[in-house]
Amino acid sequence: MTGEHSSSQYNHDLEAIRSQVLLMGGLVENHFQDAMNCYRTGNSEHAAAVVKSDEEVNRLEVMLDDMCSHLIVKRQPAANDLRTVMATGKVITDLERIGDESTKIARIAQEMASKNRTNAMFSGYETVRVLANSVGQMLHQSLDAFARHDDAKAVQLIAFDEIIDSDFRSIMRNLITFMMEDPATISFALDALWVAKAIERIGDHAKNIAEHTIYIVEGRDIRHSDYVATKQDKQHQGE
Amino acid sequence: MTGEHSSSQYNHDLEAIRSQVLLMGGLVENHFQDAMNCYRTGNSEHAAAVVKSDEEVNRLEVMLDDMCSHLIVKRQPAANDLRTVMATGKVITDLERIGDESTKIARIAQEMASKNRTNAMFSGYETVRVLANSVGQMLHQSLDAFARHDDAKAVQLIAFDEIIDSDFRSIMRNLITFMMEDPATISFALDALWVAKAIERIGDHAKNIAEHTIYIVEGRDIRHSDYVATKQDKQHQGE
Repeated sequence: MTGEHSSSQYNHDLEAIRSQVLLMGGLVENHFQDAMNCYRTGNSEHAAAVVKSDEEVNRLEVMLDDMCSHLIVKRQPAANDLRTVMATGKVITDLERIGDESTKIARIAQEMASKNRTNAMFSGYETVRVLANSVGQMLHQSLDAFARHDDAKAVQLIAFDEIIDSDFRSIMRNLITFMMEDPATISFALDALWVAKAIERIGDHAKNIAEHTIYIVEGRDIRHSDYVATKQDKQHQGE
Repeated sequence: MTGEHSSSQYNHDLEAIRSQVLLMGGLVENHFQDAMNCYRTGNSEHAAAVVKSDEEVNRLEVMLDDMCSHLIVKRQPAANDLRTVMATGKVITDLERIGDESTKIARIAQEMASKNRTNAMFSGYETVRVLANSVGQMLHQSLDAFARHDDAKAVQLIAFDEIIDSDFRSIMRNLITFMMEDPATISFALDALWVAKAIERIGDHAKNIAEHTIYIVEGRDIRHSDYVATKQDKQHQGE
């Protein structure tokens, strides 16, 4: 259906989109790190800047969605190529959502700063620090897997999300114990809980990006399937 | 580019997708109501059935995504028509997420039942009942607006989401007070908080469906814009 010329134009357009998506990915990674820094330092001006910078992420989402639509209309890709464009569109949505979750963290930092609350007795940041590092790495690696079409890495990342979820539950249990022992810290502890929840959701979105990568590379929709468990068994058996 | 014949086939295929999306919407509405009933009654068997029924929602998501891709490849829609297909794809994603949030509520109900916890002193359900009713109506109306291409209704729904968010924050403040007064109820109150959060997110997804509806009807991407505020001003001025 599409000649050599049209196909090479398709590839050219797709590469332009992919490089913009990776740019957006880098922006979103920084956005998350910046938000966590605000939560650590309680610097309200910095937090306001992080909240504001989400607008750029939103602008990129709308622009990239538009680029995907244009590509489809102009190049009329065949089923295989369309799959890639559609999955890339879903990666864009996940990146925008990661921006939203980071913004929530920055807003919590901002609110804490405005109430001039100090964390002398209880550091919410320390409670979530390890989780935030794990998820930061997971996000970076999911973008890497997307960039390199690395489906094996993507499989590992999807499995890793279960560790994140279990770490999140353990933070939650600790915070409940903490609140029960000293009700005066309830308000702090809840802030930490919302931050932990936002981090855990960023992990979910990184997992989604890994799933979309597998869809792009292998052409399988593995959402809601036991694909990863099966694949991991095979990797362990030295497939 | 597309002749009369091809265009009527496009319309036929699109209608098939739309009716399936509305079917999925009805399923998701019931799913949410069922999950809330479980949270009210604490019936663990019922809750397990609700968790299980999310599989059907997931299956529909994958199937409908596939139908959208096929439609694009087979009918090669022009820009206008493609916009509708893409936005319909986003509605499908939001419906699946609503299913996920309802499943979370059912899981909380299940966990409470398994711990044989009674709510003699504190009814989490009563705390969130009004919010759940508002969001249930909002979801129903957003599907209605999508079905009828009713962009005026969609504008109202987007504005209504702010009331939902404010109601959610007020529930959160009440729960914090409650926990501080009686730390023994912290664990219950946190369950109620997660349920309230899930309901609030269902409201967000209903708002997204309204935004996609406006995109389908008017061809404008109003995400991240002040479109609604402007439109409401005009409605008040009797546009």
